[in-house]
Amino acid sequence: MRTVDWDHDHQRLVMIDQRLLPAEFKLVHYEDHESVAAAIRDMVVRGAPAIGAAAGFGMALAARNTTANTPEALRIALAEAGEILEAARPTAVNLVWAVRRILRSIEGPGGSLAALQAAVLAEAIKIADEDVAINKEMARHGAALIDDGDTVIHHCNTGALATVDWGTALGVIRMAHEQGKNIQVLVDETRPRLQGARLTAWELESYGVPYHLISDNAAGYFLRSGKVNKVFVGSDRTAANGDVANKIGTYMLALAAFDNQVPFYPVVPTSTIDLSLAHGGLIPIEERPEAEVLSLELMGRPVAPKGAQARNPAFDVTPHRLVTGIVTENGVAYPPFETTLARAVRGEAI
Amino acid sequence: MRTVDWDHDHQRLVMIDQRLLPAEFKLVHYEDHESVAAAIRDMVVRGAPAIGAAAGFGMALAARNTTANTPEALRIALAEAGEILEAARPTAVNLVWAVRRILRSIEGPGGSLAALQAAVLAEAIKIADEDVAINKEMARHGAALIDDGDTVIHHCNTGALATVDWGTALGVIRMAHEQGKNIQVLVDETRPRLQGARLTAWELESYGVPYHLISDNAAGYFLRSGKVNKVFVGSDRTAANGDVANKIGTYMLALAAFDNQVPFYPVVPTSTIDLSLAHGGLIPIEERPEAEVLSLELMGRPVAPKGAQARNPAFDVTPHRLVTGIVTENGVAYPPFETTLARAVRGEAI
Repeated sequence: MRTVDWDHDHQRLVMIDQRLLPAEFKLVHYEDHESVAAAIRDMVVRGAPAIGAAAGFGMALAARNTTANTPEALRIALAEAGEILEAARPTAVNLVWAVRRILRSIEGPGGSLAALQAAVLAEAIKIADEDVAINKEMARHGAALIDDGDTVIHHCNTGALATVDWGTALGVIRMAHEQGKNIQVLVDETRPRLQGARLTAWELESYGVPYHLISDNAAGYFLRSGKVNKVFVGSDRTAANGDVANKIGTYMLALAAFDNQVPFYPVVPTSTIDLSLAHGGLIPIEERPEAEVLSLELMGRPVAPKGAQARNPAFDVTPHRLVTGIVTENGVAYPPFETTLARAVRGEAI
Repeated sequence: MRTVDWDHDHQRLVMIDQRLLPAEFKLVHYEDHESVAAAIRDMVVRGAPAIGAAAGFGMALAARNTTANTPEALRIALAEAGEILEAARPTAVNLVWAVRRILRSIEGPGGSLAALQAAVLAEAIKIADEDVAINKEMARHGAALIDDGDTVIHHCNTGALATVDWGTALGVIRMAHEQGKNIQVLVDETRPRLQGARLTAWELESYGVPYHLISDNAAGYFLRSGKVNKVFVGSDRTAANGDVANKIGTYMLALAAFDNQVPFYPVVPTSTIDLSLAHGGLIPIEERPEAEVLSLELMGRPVAPKGAQARNPAFDVTPHRLVTGIVTENGVAYPPFETTLARAVRGEAI
């Protein structure tokens, strides 16, 4: 079961509702691009590669539902649908990347309306299929960095649930485990939405990978203990210089890894690399509803006092000076990242 | 109402049950030192100065309840009670400090049994009273470091609830507010036990200090934003070289402050400075029950999957190279801390 998939029988999108995991496994079906945009905004689906694939299928639904009766009208309708999908979440570049890729697939003069509609769906399916293949390629490159007996720290969720299938950083860990390496994972619970505790722990349970959940605060303690060998994280957008925007808390984790000479590896499909941005300071950072911080319960009691206010930035930027290497489907990029990431994006050996 | 107080009418200890805040304000009474030790272990009372005061009153209860009929037998009984209290939590040095101080107060040949019992109680009350005075002295030294318009980050709870009254790091913030300085506080929620969200937010509400709650992960984002001016934390034990053991997560917070040239100040009564330890690597770090990590609920659902395991170190050590200055009741100690902290402990100007 893919996290994001096309229901061929009913010509619609089907996704796992990740907000309900691990307590409940529920599939939700989508019939139009507006509801897909809402699902991305509300985090039914999250993870840069997964929301990219969802946006591709959102475009396919817009093409299916169109009232346009000329190819040109369809192109205009899809451009409008793309804007709605792109606006759902600002930080991950995959929304933009997937929408532009769909629009490019129907550029040019030729084709009937039906042919263009079919082309949009074909491109959306291709984006999803490629994501799985790319993840496995990244996993092979990344798993080569993991030694037998390693303990690794992982932040947020970057597994099958964050992608179409298999995963990025968690895909690397899963591959190392499948290669027979004896590894231990320290799983950051990842406040405020707790994707580590809810999703990564659930995935690792199902893969049989040994892990312990930790509060995000504890990562520094374990890194200083000398018992952690590597840190693997995902990325929602990577700038040309190797600055990495990822789930809030990644920056402090990278600082602690660097302070203890523990290698820090973002695992990054090239679809999340944005060469148009010179550095991470240009990446827009989403601030999400304060309820995500305030709605917590502990032992059945609400945690925050009545009237409390919160700030809730969803991502931070880790400067490239803290990054050991960036794992892509085309190999592991090392500094200077300006050069190696550009090669990775062009599909050249790096 | 003090967090830790002596009930003169009934000759017993009374404490606020901090586990129930902010949902419920409940006082609990203690009649013997064993139940005081259990209350410290279970975190009915927490915060280095508060548990020191509680241990002092635990000794007074042991003296009150003794079956000893000679001064020497009382000294032996109190030494045994002290061992039980000291073992309740290993990291904060205040338990040891308070127990030893009580035992020293009844050293020497003189005194009837009743006189010694009275001396123990008098010393316990003195420890509690001094704590309030020391906190206000620290607050005055620390508040001088805060400028009008500052935004400060605070970790865990170090307020009236962590002490007998007034607070250490939060006492500094409270003092700056009472001096009329316009300040904003970013409150780390402080997983796993959420003392920031539960206790610090509740105290700041009552003092009328403007604040926003943040996930611990977000501190790095705000520090990098350039909008944070200072960081204030407490300490459970500070080594002779200025290495600071404090609530888990303090080390990563200090790294992020240092990386952005934001001053980082532990606020530390000299009772928490342990000159017998050359560096922080010698401070014992308590690992608490994994249920503290696993028992979280989000939107009414358990967060972690069934079968999940956790690791839960309660403290970490921040190396002195990340520490700007250490606020004590005798002034602010700056590097070299070996010299300045020793002076602070001796009560000399620093």
